[in-house]
Parts: sequence; structure tokens; C-alpha cells
Amino acid sequence: MSRVIRLTAIAMVVLLPAPASDVPRRLDGFSAEAAAPHRTWEEKFRAIPDRDNLRAYMQRLSARPHHLGSPYDKEVAEWILGRFQEWGLEARIETFNVLFPTPTERAVELLAPRRFTAKLQEPAVDGDDTSGQHDEQLPTYNAYSADGDVTAPLVYVNHGVPADYEQLERLGVSVKGAIVIARYGGSWRGIKPKVAAEQGAVGCLIYSDPRDDGYFQGEVFPKGPFRPRDGVQRGSVMDMPLYPGDPLTPGIGATADAKRLDRKDAKTITRIPVLPISYGDAEPLLAALEGPVAPEPWRGSLPITYRIGPGPARVRLKVTSSWDLKPAYNVIARVPGAGRPDEWVVRGNHHDAWVNGADDPVAGQIALLEEARALGELLKQGWKPRRTIIYCAWGAEEQGLLGSTEWGETHAAELKNKTVAYINTDSNGRGFLSAGGSHTLEKFINDVARDIIDPETKLTVWKRAQLARIARSPGERQELRSRPDFRIGALGSGSDYTVFVDHLGIPALNLSFGGLDGGGIYHSIYDDYYWYSRFSDTDFSYGRALAQTVGTAVMRLASAELLPYDFTNFADTIEKYVDELQKLLAGKRNEVEERNRQIEEGVYEAIADPRKTFIPPPVEAVPPHLNFAPLENAVEALTQAAERYDQARSKASLKAVDAINRKLIQSERLLTDPAGLPDRPWYKHQIYAPGYYTGYGVKTIPAVREAIEQNKWQLAEASIARVGALLNAHAALVQSAAEDLEKLAR
Amino acid sequence: MSRVIRLTAIAMVVLLPAPASDVPRRLDGFSAEAAAPHRTWEEKFRAIPDRDNLRAYMQRLSARPHHLGSPYDKEVAEWILGRFQEWGLEARIETFNVLFPTPTERAVELLAPRRFTAKLQEPAVDGDDTSGQHDEQLPTYNAYSADGDVTAPLVYVNHGVPADYEQLERLGVSVKGAIVIARYGGSWRGIKPKVAAEQGAVGCLIYSDPRDDGYFQGEVFPKGPFRPRDGVQRGSVMDMPLYPGDPLTPGIGATADAKRLDRKDAKTITRIPVLPISYGDAEPLLAALEGPVAPEPWRGSLPITYRIGPGPARVRLKVTSSWDLKPAYNVIARVPGAGRPDEWVVRGNHHDAWVNGADDPVAGQIALLEEARALGELLKQGWKPRRTIIYCAWGAEEQGLLGSTEWGETHAAELKNKTVAYINTDSNGRGFLSAGGSHTLEKFINDVARDIIDPETKLTVWKRAQLARIARSPGERQELRSRPDFRIGALGSGSDYTVFVDHLGIPALNLSFGGLDGGGIYHSIYDDYYWYSRFSDTDFSYGRALAQTVGTAVMRLASAELLPYDFTNFADTIEKYVDELQKLLAGKRNEVEERNRQIEEGVYEAIADPRKTFIPPPVEAVPPHLNFAPLENAVEALTQAAERYDQARSKASLKAVDAINRKLIQSERLLTDPAGLPDRPWYKHQIYAPGYYTGYGVKTIPAVREAIEQNKWQLAEASIARVGALLNAHAALVQSAAEDLEKLAR
Repeated sequence: MSRVIRLTAIAMVVLLPAPASDVPRRLDGFSAEAAAPHRTWEEKFRAIPDRDNLRAYMQRLSARPHHLGSPYDKEVAEWILGRFQEWGLEARIETFNVLFPTPTERAVELLAPRRFTAKLQEPAVDGDDTSGQHDEQLPTYNAYSADGDVTAPLVYVNHGVPADYEQLERLGVSVKGAIVIARYGGSWRGIKPKVAAEQGAVGCLIYSDPRDDGYFQGEVFPKGPFRPRDGVQRGSVMDMPLYPGDPLTPGIGATADAKRLDRKDAKTITRIPVLPISYGDAEPLLAALEGPVAPEPWRGSLPITYRIGPGPARVRLKVTSSWDLKPAYNVIARVPGAGRPDEWVVRGNHHDAWVNGADDPVAGQIALLEEARALGELLKQGWKPRRTIIYCAWGAEEQGLLGSTEWGETHAAELKNKTVAYINTDSNGRGFLSAGGSHTLEKFINDVARDIIDPETKLTVWKRAQLARIARSPGERQELRSRPDFRIGALGSGSDYTVFVDHLGIPALNLSFGGLDGGGIYHSIYDDYYWYSRFSDTDFSYGRALAQTVGTAVMRLASAELLPYDFTNFADTIEKYVDELQKLLAGKRNEVEERNRQIEEGVYEAIADPRKTFIPPPVEAVPPHLNFAPLENAVEALTQAAERYDQARSKASLKAVDAINRKLIQSERLLTDPAGLPDRPWYKHQIYAPGYYTGYGVKTIPAVREAIEQNKWQLAEASIARVGALLNAHAALVQSAAEDLEKLAR
Repeated sequence: MSRVIRLTAIAMVVLLPAPASDVPRRLDGFSAEAAAPHRTWEEKFRAIPDRDNLRAYMQRLSARPHHLGSPYDKEVAEWILGRFQEWGLEARIETFNVLFPTPTERAVELLAPRRFTAKLQEPAVDGDDTSGQHDEQLPTYNAYSADGDVTAPLVYVNHGVPADYEQLERLGVSVKGAIVIARYGGSWRGIKPKVAAEQGAVGCLIYSDPRDDGYFQGEVFPKGPFRPRDGVQRGSVMDMPLYPGDPLTPGIGATADAKRLDRKDAKTITRIPVLPISYGDAEPLLAALEGPVAPEPWRGSLPITYRIGPGPARVRLKVTSSWDLKPAYNVIARVPGAGRPDEWVVRGNHHDAWVNGADDPVAGQIALLEEARALGELLKQGWKPRRTIIYCAWGAEEQGLLGSTEWGETHAAELKNKTVAYINTDSNGRGFLSAGGSHTLEKFINDVARDIIDPETKLTVWKRAQLARIARSPGERQELRSRPDFRIGALGSGSDYTVFVDHLGIPALNLSFGGLDGGGIYHSIYDDYYWYSRFSDTDFSYGRALAQTVGTAVMRLASAELLPYDFTNFADTIEKYVDELQKLLAGKRNEVEERNRQIEEGVYEAIADPRKTFIPPPVEAVPPHLNFAPLENAVEALTQAAERYDQARSKASLKAVDAINRKLIQSERLLTDPAGLPDRPWYKHQIYAPGYYTGYGVKTIPAVREAIEQNKWQLAEASIARVGALLNAHAALVQSAAEDLEKLAR
């Protein structure tokens, strides 16, 4: 035995990280003595996940519609609970009572210039049995739409984001008093009715253009994986960028006895009625529009001339819902830590779906289950994680991350005190590893990816991801070839990591495979086993790879002697963000200066077509220069502290690092501000947040970035100072941890 | 009178050219004494063109189909002859006998997986009377398609240019033995069957995708100006980049007694049968294809998934034609020069159309007619041009520039000896001035544009064009604001300037207005007065502006004492081209190096989807560095000579410049090589030519550029030397002219 360990130790010295290579590195946070047996356990773990099990779980979990409040949702939660327990994990269901509207009436009618009544119904498909479970399916709708019955002229608004309304202004089109029709894409769906209402619209339709996930992309279901003519994307439209979770209990858990807002005071419910429709239903509405031809990037793939209106299309939109409290079931399983039980590694995936949800969320949930089974196996074989591992199957995600948010709010103090990291998955497909998360975990997850084999190419998933990026990102090739780690994206919102990273300041990761799994069944009745087993990860080999990836990450986080946070990649990332902010401002300055100059030169009058309405933009004040020094100084402090920590770690013995770990656990928390972001106090993290006008899409250093985007110069400068101070505190903690480690030098 | 002249002269001193301004400059080539009366004549001229006349001409000329060989073609030519004569111009018709196939049989049938027979017929439109003249309309076809009757699997090839076939190779798709279906666009249409045949296809269909000029762009005819479902673009597919004009008489005039090739030896006739079809006829064919989904840029706006095949669609394509000689009527009018009758200014526009041709060519032809009438008026008032002006209404342009080419070939020696410039128009619309041509005329045409008022904005057409470019070309803004003249595009092919510039080496200009006149009736029965008067230059104010622009240019060229060529802009342009060539090579080197590196890294295996065929590209030799010194040295010589000439001209008295003019006339001829371009000796000009694989699109310094594009390194280097030598000779002539002018210093 000792010989093997010795050889491994020697091999590790040889295998010191070359730049941008998938040769496995030394295990960060593990001493050589601990690394070798840990690697053996990891290898045992990765051999366990089984594709037949994954398939069987999916068949079971997606057998019937299982949305929040449905009978099968409860069955699913109880079945998962049973599995956790069967595999030897301590588990229970934690239930919250959350507001969930379900429609009682829905209507979309074209009243002029001709009459047409939208179907608002997805038909069953021959051979796809679950698509026919109409009695249990939620109708096509957008949850948290206000009730309403409006009749008004129709206006096409492209994606319905603020930039689109600026274009409409140039074309002399207002949506005041109109019903807008927006296409999916360009933002999270909840942004569309929010902005439409800000602009004075009285109703909002959202449709799936075939350009985006229908026939333009490929053959439609059931011949191919893309969205058929009558397929509809359901989904929540609550104002999640304000706060996610139960609209009635912002910031606190929706327990039975929680103090709830009156529904009329819940600011995340839309101000105007909204419905999603298929392109089959949208085509007659869009075809009835006149007015300006839509700008080229607005045009989709329907065989019509896309025009903007307003009218002559006149539309009635009616939505009413039954506004009930429903039980959200979180299934929580626990593996107590042997050494540091009060340090937690939390791993989650939701179990609820809009309908059958084979891809979303079952493809991720089955990986989680197979990980839990495998960990149970290891425990039986004698494996003991140092830290406590918590596995969570969340309920009520689809409505606005309700299950995870209420749980996170309920246990906020304990989670902030104990949690080392949260790892999330959701949908999963075939192709390349996609990793987003906190950049203190960037090096960590790169290392995990170097240990996972891609089932199709037999490369490591790290290598396949790196090469795919080299192919697709010409501007980043040089960095991809030289930087030891590929960059991970920052997290915005859209899945259950949100409460952990954004509200609690816990480092998080979100992982999936994809890129070769295109389709158009998202949030429709066709996201089911029939579809998934024909078009996505048909042999569940990427389900296995996901279980292997996440399980390896969980085990490594749970057993590392020193927490495997890395601050050099974090500092490098912050430097990049600060550079982006400066470029954003410079770009805005240039843009305004150039536009003002063109106004003065008479460009707009010269290019205008006198047969068309065109309203030149107004002269604007050029944005001022801002003092970026607090951020620039913070970047230097971060970089120096990180390098010192890195040096110290490489020389330290990892025998007595508990106190250092206690310190490190707080490092991400220092990036939060108890006051939250401007006008949305629920969002505490000052580095990552979903954009106020993107919804899912991240805005990094959001207080500064959004202030610049929205021309709030004083706020921008104040926020630079505030974030700079937080980053300095973070740097001081890292510096202090480095000093502690230096005392442990071998 | 003298007082007026004096004031004008003072005004001119004040109005010396500021950078990038539309303030009129001194008239190049005119002494102050000559400039003032000339300006008065120009102003008289510009007051004459009349919108009612233009409208009446269009109604008359487009009243019936008037293609080559049709009864109304002859009537049109004779009517134009009558007008020239009525207006006091000496005129006659010069007839050539040219090969012109017209179809006897046409069929496109889908045989599998289902049956469909293409209509191949454009229906009449209610209210549009001329659209119903079916008896006189040419059927929808591509002239100079080989006869053939082929049945084969179908393959979709996007635009059908070489880059598309490279993509097909990556996808493992061959067109050997197949019928290809290409969409219009991306190249001149004649390239598509040429490349298809090179690739082994047995037939070629070309269709108009609604993305490009149908409903995607705007409402279709008759509701809007764009191409309706059954609209077809006719057009020639002869291999014009080899040589234009009558296929049987390359290089010589197709006179009655000309020695003609046997038709089988005419290399410009396609090798495979070709037919154009509507999107109505294309949709069932494309919808029947399977195989790989087309890459995103290949997809159009039909409501289908664009797939490539081959098959299962199996298609029969049949075309047979009657191959007859037809009379091409060139109507040639002449205003003899008072001072220098053996220096000619030639101005032309074709009169023949594919069908009624209101836009193409009548919109340009009516401007030409109104110019001729106005010149006739001026002659009656006593105006005497120094040089001879020749007005040409060409026949048989649509088939491949036959009328102008045969005329140019017939009179080659005289034209080369005498012609100062050729000015062409063709279609015309509404919007911004578009000018292409020889760069020795760039400054000249900029100056003309400073004297023409845009009818919509009342800006000068120069100003409107400049501001439109500022709006649309962000990368060129700085230059547009500082360079005194906007750049004009180089001429490729596509209209009657071709023989003049490319074969004879005569400086040419091609002028039109457009940009606000979108439509989709090109080469269809709907290009008629009904369409034009509803959707294009409906009040003929741009017809008038075109007559004003071209007439001003003609008068100025005809009366300038010193020919108004400018060599500084030419030298600047050549410098830009030489820089482009170096970047082209550097770009190819980088591209090959990067691709080779990716092959070595395993990128292609990593990104491939194992469920799809993908054939990685082969490793290629990196292109060598080339010796660009001969061109770089030539650019320096050109620049120095041009500056010296410019200086000398500004100081010279223009009293005795006849000998200098004789020299200058030859300056563009020195840019030609009697041996022509590699493998296409008809094309003599070494700076401008249509690309061998673009057809209309220009390739500047073509022998070098195409050799680099085609990896012919020895040829590239030899061509650099050859073109460098020509440019040196040109520089020497300019230098010599400068020396002559220096002797005339005031």
C-alpha cells in the first residue's frame, strides 16, 4: 500500500499544472496523505452511477404531470424521500405554503380586421402517451399574471426589452393602451410584461417564434426535437429580479404561520394580464398587423411580413386565476460529516415540473438521485465525509424558485454560518460541460472536470469543453490555450442556486451538459420521456457523466482538509469585470457623442425616408467620467492577497486548518451587503445578480453596472466605493488566511 | 456681364475645398474664364428635365414586353431613334446579330417522395394590365442554359458558390450526379450553374427565397413592392466572367458577316441545364429534402426546416431552347464636338428588358432620353460642346451585355483612341446617389454631386450620400468626415460599362439613385409601370435628378479644357487595394495556421456530434509570404506623380492643353494588358474586373487577388510584378503630363 501511495505522490509532483492542460493536478486542499485514499473513493464513486437506473428514475418521475399542487407532485416528493431513505440517507420533507395561481379563464381573440380565436391548447401526439394526459396538465399560461380582461389594438414589440421600446419611439409607435405581443427570447419572460406595463400597455402576449426554437432550427416534434406549431412555453412571469420565492413572504420562509403580505401588495405579481401562445396562434395576430415593417433583427420565421402596428389588429386578452396557497415539498437528505459536521456542502435540483418535465427538471434530478444512491453505497463501504452533505430535491421551482428560496430564507442564519458551497443542476443534455458559478470555485470545478470522461469522445470533459470553446470563441483562443483554467460564467438567476448565492452569499456552482441537444419542448407537454429518449441524452450517458461530475465535486468539497477555494481566479475575474465597467462607460460616452454629432450633422434627416415616420433621437448629455479608483485599488489588493494565499497554501501543512476554514467560509459572505442592491434589497451579493431588465442574465458588479446602464451617475460612483470597500474586506480576509497558513509552512 | 464673372471668380477663391464638404469646388479642368459661362449652361441644362416627360417615356417604353427579338423591342429602338432625331441629334441604329436561345420546353417535377409539378408561370395581377400580356412575355427561364433533360436527387447548396461546396464537403454531401437547388444571391446567377457543373451536378435550379426579396423584406406585390409567391427572376446564365457579349463572337463584333464559333465551342453557354423558379415552386422541393439541417446562414424564410439532402427528393428538370440569331438594335446618337471632335464622351443605357422592364432598364433610359432632349435644347440655344458626345441606347443587354459589347468590339480601335469616358446608367430608384467607376473620375463625380439637389431633402445629393454613409458605415466615419471626396466603388460587371472599362480600358462611371426603393420584381413580369409608379420613384423626381447628374457630368467632360481626371484619389485607391491584398494573404495564412493547429489539437473530433456526419478539414500548407514590393513601389511612384500633377495643374494656364489631353486619354489604357487576365484574355483591365466566382462583384487587381484566393502562388507573384509594371507606366505618363503642365505655369 505505501508503495502505491508513494508512487502517486511522485506522479503528482511530475504532474504539476502545465498551462491549459487536462492533466489532473494535485488535489487542492488535500495533503498528499489524504489525497491518495480520497482519489480511490472518488474512483469507486464514479464507477457506480448506472444508465439503466437513470432511465428508470426518469420514466417514474415524468410518468405524469407533477407541477406544484398536483397529486403527482406529492407522489414524486414521497418517492424521492423513500429512495433517499432506502439508500441509507437521513431524509425528510420540508413543506412550505406558497401562493400559486392557476387559471380559471383564458382567452385570446382577434376581433378586427377579421375574427380568430386562439386555441391555447397543445394537442396530444400519436405514440407519445403522456402528451395525452390532458386532465392532469396545467393549461398554457404564465403564472403570476394579473387577472384582467382587456381589448385593445395590438403592437409587436420584438423581445419587449427596453431597447426595443427605444426603437419603437424612433418609429413613432407607442404602446400606451395597447396589448403588446412579444416573442420569447432576448430576456427572461417575466421582463416582457414588466416593461410593457412600464410603457403603458394594458396586456401582453408572449409567443414562441419558429425562428427561435421551431422549424427554423430543425424538424419539429414528433419528427424532430423542435417546437411544433401548437407548442407553448409556459412559465412564471413574477418579477424575480425584485425577489424570487413566494410573492407573499419576501425575505422570510413561507411557513404555515408566516406573516403574509396581502396579495395586492405583492410587488412581484404582474401589473397587466399576460398569456403565452404558440406560433400557430400568433400567426393570424401578427399577420393582421400593419404599420411599419419591423426592423430586420425583429423578424422571425413565420411566412409573413413582420409589421409593428398598432392595429388594425384588435385583440381581446382575458386571464383569471384561482389564487391559492399550495404545498411546496422540499425533500432534504443528510449525510452527517464525520469531522466537521457543522460545515455543510449542499447539493440540489428541483423535482417539480410544468408538466411531465423529462428534461426540466428530471434529467438533472435523476443524476442527483444516482449520486445519492452512490454516496449511500460508499457509506456502506466505510467512506466518511469530513463535512455534512445535504441533498435537496426542491419543490415549486418553476413558479419562481419557491421551494429553495423559502428553505434558504427559513434557514438563513444557519446556512450562512455553515455552508461551504451549494451545487445545483437542473435540465441536462448531451455535449459539452457547462459550468457557472462563484469564481472562488472556478479552479476547483476545472479540476473536477479534468477527472471526468466524456462518454462520446473519451476525452476528459474539461478537454472537450476547452476545445469546443476554442472552436467557437475566436476572440478567446489565446487565453483558452494559455490560461490553466477555462473561465466559468457568473450566475444570474433561473434555477435554485439563486437564494444561496444572491441572498445568502454562499459560493455556488451550476452544472450541466449540453450543446448537442437542441430542442423546442421547453415548458410544454412534449418535454416528456418520449421526447427525451428519442432526441436528447438517449442512452443516459450524460446523465451518468453529470452524476459523476457533481458527485466528485460534492465528495471533494466534503473531504478536503483545507476548503478548496481559490482567490487568484477570483481576483482575475474581478479585474476583468472592472475593465468591462470602464469600457461600458467609455462605450456609452462614445455612443452619445457620436449620436449627438450625427444629430448636429443632420444625419437623421438625410437618411429618413419621407414616406415613413421617423423620429430622430434627442440630444443627450454625455455621461461623465467616473472615479473607478476604489475598484482599481481593490483589484490590486485582491490580487496581492490571492497570490500570497496561493503561495502560502502550496507550502503549508494542512493538519490544523479548522480555524482557517471557519475564516474562509465567510469569504463569499463578505461580498454581500445587508442593504442589498439599489431598490431590490433581497439581492445581497454585490458581485453577481440577475439583471433588473434581463431576469435570468447576470449583471456582474450589478449596483455599478446597472447604474451606468441607467444613467444614474451618482449612484454609480457611490456603488463603486461601496463595492470597493467590500472587496477590500474580502482581500483582508484572504490576506489574514494567508498569514495563518504561512504559520503552517512545512 | 464682366462684373458677374468677377464676382463668381472671387467666390471661387473663397470656396476652396474644405475637407468633406459639399460646397462646390472650382471646376477641375476649366479656366476661370471658361468655368463661368459653362456653369451657366449647366444651370440651364439642369432646369430642363421634366417629370411629366419622364413618366410619359416610361409609359411608352414599358407598354409591352420588349426583349431582344420581340416586335416591341424593334418598335422601342425605332421610337428612341425618332426622339433623338426629333431633338436635333444625328442618330442611327446599329444592328448586330446575336445568339439568343428562347425556350421550347421547360419542366420541373418532383418525382419522389411525392409528386409535384412546378407551375413555372407568373400570374397576372388584377389592376396591373401589362402583367396580363402573356402572349408577348418570355417564359421564366435562364438564357444560355444548356439543353437537357435530367432526373436526379436534389441537393440544396445555399448560394451555390465555392465556399458553400466546402461546407458541403464538411457535411459529407456530394452533388455528383445530383440536381442542385440554389437560392438567388451571394453571387451573380451565372456562377451557380458554372460551379455546380464544376462540382459534378447534372442540373441546377435557382429560386428566389422570400428572405431575400419576398415577404421577409416587406409586403409582396400588389399589396407591396416585394416578390410574390409565384414571381420569378429571369436572367442570363452565360459565363460572363469569361467574356460577355455574343457567345459566338468573342472579341469581335457580331456583324452580319462575322466569323462565328460553332455553338458547341461557345464556352460561355452552361454545361448543365438551369431554370429559375419562384418560391411557390421551390417550397415543395425544399420541404421534401432530408439529410443534414442547413447551416444557419443558409436558411431562408420559407416555413420549413431547410435541409440539404441529397434526396429523398428526386427531381426532373427539362429545358430545351430554340437557338436563333436575333437582331440587337443599338440606337446611337451623336453631338459633334466643336473643338475636339475626335475626343468622345460616351453615355449609355440599355433599352431592352426581360419583360416590360419599367425599372430595369426604363428608369435609366428615360433619364438618358431627357438628357438628350435637354442637350438638343441647349444646342438650339447656341451651346457648343468642345468634344463629341455620343448617346447610346443599347439593345440585348439582358442576355449578357450583347449590344454594347458587340458595338465596343466592332469599334474598339476608334474607341480606344478617342474615348474620354463612358457614363452608364441602368435601373433607377429613390434615395441616395450611388456611384461606381474608375478612380481617376472619383473627384470629378464627387464635384458633380455637389451641384445636384436631392429632391426629397433639398440637400445636395453629395451631402445626402455622405450622411447616409456616416450613418451606415461606422468603420468609415472618420474618413467620411475628413476625406474631401467620398469613395466610389470599383466596377465589376452587370451593365453596359463592362466592355468600355474592362475590355477597352476606358474610364467609366455607373450612376443611380436608390436605397429607399426596395422591391422584388427584378426580371419578372411585375417590373412594370404599375409597380414603378406605385412603389419606386413615383413622381419621377429621381429620374429628373439622375438626368441632371449624368447630363452635368457629360457636359463637364465634354467641355473641360483639360480632361478632369484626378490621379491623387486613384493613387490613394491603389494603395488601399495593395493593402487589402496584403491583408488577404495574411488572413489566409492565419486561417490556415489556425485550422491546422485546431486539427492537431483535436478540436474537430471534440466538437463533432457523433450522431451527424462531419468530415474534418484536411491539413493545408500555409501560404508563403509573397513579394509585394513591385506593387508597393508602384504605389509610391503613383502617389508622387499624382501629387506633382495636382500641383502643376493648380498653377497651369489651360490654354494649350490638347497634347496633354491626348496623353491623358491614354492613361487608363495603360492599365490594360493586351494578354488580358489569366485564363480570360477578353478582360484586359488589370485593376478592375468581375470576379471569376462572383460574376458581378468586382475583384480589384484581379490577377493578383484571384491568384491568392485560389492558392496560385507563382501566378500571384508574377501578377504582382506585371501589375506593378503597368502602374509604373501609368505613373510615368502622369509624371510626363505633370511636366508638360509645369511648362504652362501661369
